[in-house]
This record gives sequence, structure tokens and C-alpha cells, in this order.
Amino acid sequence: KQYRIAVIPGDGIGKEVMPEGLRVLETAAKKHGVSLHFDHFDFSSWDYYEKHGQMMPDDWKEKIGKHDAIYFGAVGWPAKIPDHVSLWGSLIKFRREFDQYVNLRPVRLMPGVPCPLANRKPGDIDFWVVRENTEGEYSSVGGRMFPDTDREFVTQQTVMTRTGVDRILKFAFELAQSRPKKHLTSATKSNGISITMPYWDERVEAMAKKFPGVKWDKYHIDILTANFVLHPDWFDVVVGSNLFGDILSDLGPACTGTIGIAPSGNINPEGDFPSVFEPVHGSAPDIAGQGIANPIGAIWSGAMMLDHLGEKVAGKSIVDAIERTLAERTLRTKDLGGNADTTACGKAVADMVD
Amino acid sequence: KQYRIAVIPGDGIGKEVMPEGLRVLETAAKKHGVSLHFDHFDFSSWDYYEKHGQMMPDDWKEKIGKHDAIYFGAVGWPAKIPDHVSLWGSLIKFRREFDQYVNLRPVRLMPGVPCPLANRKPGDIDFWVVRENTEGEYSSVGGRMFPDTDREFVTQQTVMTRTGVDRILKFAFELAQSRPKKHLTSATKSNGISITMPYWDERVEAMAKKFPGVKWDKYHIDILTANFVLHPDWFDVVVGSNLFGDILSDLGPACTGTIGIAPSGNINPEGDFPSVFEPVHGSAPDIAGQGIANPIGAIWSGAMMLDHLGEKVAGKSIVDAIERTLAERTLRTKDLGGNADTTACGKAVADMVD
Ligand SMILES: CC(C)[C@H](C(=O)O)[C@@H](O)C(=O)O
Ligand SMILES: CC(C)[C@H](C(=O)O)[C@@H](O)C(=O)O
Repeated sequence: KQYRIAVIPGDGIGKEVMPEGLRVLETAAKKHGVSLHFDHFDFSSWDYYEKHGQMMPDDWKEKIGKHDAIYFGAVGWPAKIPDHVSLWGSLIKFRREFDQYVNLRPVRLMPGVPCPLANRKPGDIDFWVVRENTEGEYSSVGGRMFPDTDREFVTQQTVMTRTGVDRILKFAFELAQSRPKKHLTSATKSNGISITMPYWDERVEAMAKKFPGVKWDKYHIDILTANFVLHPDWFDVVVGSNLFGDILSDLGPACTGTIGIAPSGNINPEGDFPSVFEPVHGSAPDIAGQGIANPIGAIWSGAMMLDHLGEKVAGKSIVDAIERTLAERTLRTKDLGGNADTTACGKAVADMVD
Repeated sequence: KQYRIAVIPGDGIGKEVMPEGLRVLETAAKKHGVSLHFDHFDFSSWDYYEKHGQMMPDDWKEKIGKHDAIYFGAVGWPAKIPDHVSLWGSLIKFRREFDQYVNLRPVRLMPGVPCPLANRKPGDIDFWVVRENTEGEYSSVGGRMFPDTDREFVTQQTVMTRTGVDRILKFAFELAQSRPKKHLTSATKSNGISITMPYWDERVEAMAKKFPGVKWDKYHIDILTANFVLHPDWFDVVVGSNLFGDILSDLGPACTGTIGIAPSGNINPEGDFPSVFEPVHGSAPDIAGQGIANPIGAIWSGAMMLDHLGEKVAGKSIVDAIERTLAERTLRTKDLGGNADTTACGKAVADMVD
């Protein structure tokens, strides 16, 4: 089978890291007999927005909705386009309209990456954050009353549906069950957020009954963030609401020093719609155009994409190559104390794939 | 003037650390000519709940509402009382009904405390988290529909009022202005939480105009938690909503290794109602009764209380004494690698006060 991939580099360093991601994907595909076909799109970018006054063409869903996956660079350029236009006009639109209800990010201490935590070494930290990606705190329900007076107030609803909560929990429990430690941690705040969060807890308990082989626990989000710093070795799969997952999936990579190289998947597990794979970093206008951006986030996202497509061996070959590349100072980029540029680092990973 | 303090030890190790807190307060008061009068109360505890079926007497407001401050130990014993009864029946009740709209916590790297971050030393990290303490995400508005069906959903509103947002921002800007760095950081998430958080940003901008001497910036909560780990030296005063402040004021102390010794104030700045000072740690039933609890959180909370009462010199004498005590292995408790018990550590701090 040939996989059709929509490639959207987006803005800023997105355009620089994507060619390296593609280089590595092509190498791994060839080595492992996987057939990939790439279609390139220029929307979701400032250039496109400047020309058309919107982030994407009206028929964006027809253009990319039938692909097997979307490989995405970076979007957002606050100095030129307000976030609510650029992000809500592309990334968040994908999540909602392609029902990508899982946001998946690894937290892994890699060789060669300076760790901000004391006394941790590669192997100590290796878990996944599973984030609900369509509802929860990111709702569009709410408003303002008595504007510009002393009585002014705004409200915004957090919305949790049975469907939305159960399906993300199911995904997280299944992931936990597939891993050696079989351990799931739920992020909650039911002692303070007294309506939605007790409901989340209730559904976790119900779902846990269906996965008797998975050990599970829960922490309130405040102490959970503390435990990411103090005991990152405790975790295996961590599941949270849209907001809690957002926080934990930035904090986790920060704790392993990998925020600049972390990958992510916005996944529709049923495959009714394509999933989006993108580095966690943004378009970084400040360093764009210099050829120094670290391509590992994009490359690693490519590995996650292969994994999602069912090509696990090819995906793993890339992650292994990343680890071997990062271990060599001469092959890492400057942000990690190395001296390679974007292309040299990308080529190094491609060479390491086997 | 004589200050009247209501003392509520509460449960578990609350009962063990409070005598040390009082010992140090009495010593500092005597040395600095401050007159303190203590009234002791046994409610907000399991014993009281067992006898009376509620956490506090009906006339709790009359009993403690006229005191100059409330000095609190710890509450909560999940195995015996559900959190929503114990916490919402005492601590959260105080916050709401005594309009303690500021929750204030220091984040400071202390000598002698093992820091989970690599290469940080005392002096590098020293800031305050200012948390809105009455509204925001901790609302009581919301509910459930279609229970026990596939269409089930729950909602909960985040509520931000002009009054509520402006007064916490004013407090935070004033605090920033009083400090040498004059720097305020606002926690937001306006790129994802699209109604309440842009309002928060709007009010921050408006308030900033009234404090031209304060430099300010804002970060989305996801990257802000990451920056607590990566760049804790960037911060001076950090202000956040009820939920964001809750998260940051656990994460901050975790980053400095001080989560077991951090103090907090639940403050009504106008003095219309008493403020509550309490260690951040809970009642810790697992180690209660052994005399090994670390009393520093309670003692430090006492210092914050003196500060709030306007007795800054006496307050500072206690914080200095804490620093000197922690620096000595023999005077620290076991949780910090020392060998003192609760009483020995409390006496040591009292001896150091000058
Ligand atoms: C116990 C809990 C309700 C409380 C809160 O979330 O406010 C606690 O975490 C705190 O920070 O004082
Ligand atoms: C850009 C922003 C809206 C987004 C989010 O909060 O979901 C980002 O932080 C992420 O994690 O993908």
C-alpha cells in the first residue's frame, strides 16, 4: 500500500525543518520497504494569508481530508497575524473538524540533551502524555455582560461530554496496557473544580474496570506538576483534559530539556480523518532564515506518523537514529551545544537510520 | 497594640508543627516588642467532625471573624472525611466568606534544601506567586445533563468579574513595585481559552498603565510551567487566576525543593476580615504522631503573618532564622537529610531569632 501524505511546512523555521523531516522519512521508507507519496501545500502560512486574507482555502477539507496523514511544520507569527486567526484558522480547526481527539506527546530523556533536573540520566524518564484535544476548557461557550462597567463579568464554560471523556480515556488505557509498566496516571483537580473534574474522575474509575491489567492512580494537577519535577520516573502514561494535557505536555518536555525537539501527534484513532504530526516548537521568527533550527522535532514527528500508520519498525528506526545522532556533539545543532546546522543534523539522522 | 490571633491546629501533623510555630512567634514577638495574644480553637479537625458532624460550629464567623489573623495548621484526612466536606467546609469557606482574595506564596531557594534543578544555588530563585483566591475556575456554577446516557455531559463555568480580576492584579502590581526588580509576569492561556483569558489579558494591560514603573510580561501557562523549570531566575512576581495560581504555587516550591516547607497566606488586604496563614503541606496522616514533621512551613507562615500585620522587622527576623537553621544539617529534620525532630528544629529556629 502507498501512503499519501499531505505536507504543510507553514511558516518560519517550519520551512527549514520540513525538508530534513522528509529526507529522513524517505530514507527510512526505502530501507523498510514502505511506500510514501507526498503532496505539498503552501497554506497555513503568512504568505498564503497575505495573498488570500485567510489561512486556508475554502476547500481545504477536500484538498487534505483524504490523505493518510498530514505532516505539518509550524504555524503562527504573532507580529503579523493574531494568534486567534493563525492558530484557530489552522491547527485548532484541524483538531476540531478532523476530530483529532488525541494529542499525544512523548516525554523522554535523550542522550546528549542537557537535562535541567539534577541527577537524571537517559532511561530514567520515558513516558507519554495523552491529552484530550477537542473539548474541555477550550470551549467556545461563554460571553461578557455589563461591558465597561464595574459590574462587568465574563464566563466561559468547560464542557465534558461522555463521548469525549470516555474515548480519550480508552485510548490512554489501551496505550498503558500495551506498555511494559502498564501504569496510567490521571490528572484531576476535583478538590477545587467541583463539577467537571469529579465527573472526569468518575469516568476514569469506570474505564479502569475495563482494564484490570492496568495499575492506575490520579493526582491533582498542582501536585502533579510538582511530581513531574520531583519524580519524573513515576510516570508511564499520563492522561489529562485539554488544558491539563496542554500544560503537562509542555512541562514534561521541559523537564527532559527537549522542548525544542519534542514531537506531537494530533490523532483521530479511528482513521475517519487524517491525523496531524508536527513538532511542538513554533515558527520561531527570531531564528528563521538562518539555517540553524533544530530539525529533530520535525524528524521525530515523522517517526510518530509512521508509527500511527502502522509502520512501527520504520518508525522505531528513526527514533533510534535520533538517539544516536544526539549523542554526538558534532551532529547536534547549536541549541544543544553542538555545531551542526539544520541540514547537517538532518543528514546525520538519515545516515544513522538502519 | 495587641494583636489577637486565632490558632487552629486542625489535623494530623498540623497539631505537631503549630506548637513550634507558636514558640518561634513568641520568641520573635518578645525580641521585637510585638504583643501577640493567642486564642486556640479545636474545630476544622476530624475530632471535631466526629463529635459534631460538621467541620466548624455554626457561629464560626463570630468566633474567629474579629481576630487580627488566623494561624492555621492543616486540614483534610481523605480516609476519614471526603475532601469536599473537609476542605470546602473550612479552608475554602474562609477564602470565600472572609473574602481572602489573595493567595500569596514565596518561591525561594533556601540553603540546605536539596534542589531538584541542576546547578542552582540559594539566591538564584526568589519570587512570589500571587493567586486569585475566590473566583475563576473554582466556581460553583454548572451541572450535568442526560445522566447515565451516551448523551451525558457536564459543564462548569469559569467566572471572572471586573472587581475580582482588577483587585488581584492591583495587589500583584503593588507587590512588584515594592521590590527591587519591579517585574511582573502574568499567567494566561488566551490562545486556547478564548473568552475568559483574553479578558484577563485586557485587564492586565489596563492595570499596567497605572504602574508605569513596573516591567511586565505574560506567558501562556503551558510554556510558563516549562520556564519555571528552565528559567526560574526570570521571575519576580507571578500573578495568575485561581487555577493557574494553584498550579504555579505548587510547581514553584517543587522547583526549589521546598514543597514540604513552603508557607502561604490567604489574605484580605483591606483587613475587613482576618487573613489565614498556613503551611502549604497537608495533614500528612502517614507520618502524624511520630514527632518527625518538618515545622518550617508553619514557622515561615508565622513570619508571613507578622509581615501582614505590619511587623516587618519581626517577620524578617524569623525568615533569617529559618535560613540559618536550614543551613545546619544537625538542625534540619529528616526529610531534608538532617537528624532533628520536630521540636528540636523548632527550638533551633527560636534560638536563631535575633
Ligand atoms: C486543597 C485544595 C482545594 C487547595 C486548592 O486547590 O486551592 C490547595 O491545593 C491549595 O493550594 O490551597
Ligand atoms: C497554540 C496553542 C493554541 C496550542 C494549544 O494550547 O493547544 C499549543 O499550546 C499546543 O499545545 O499545541
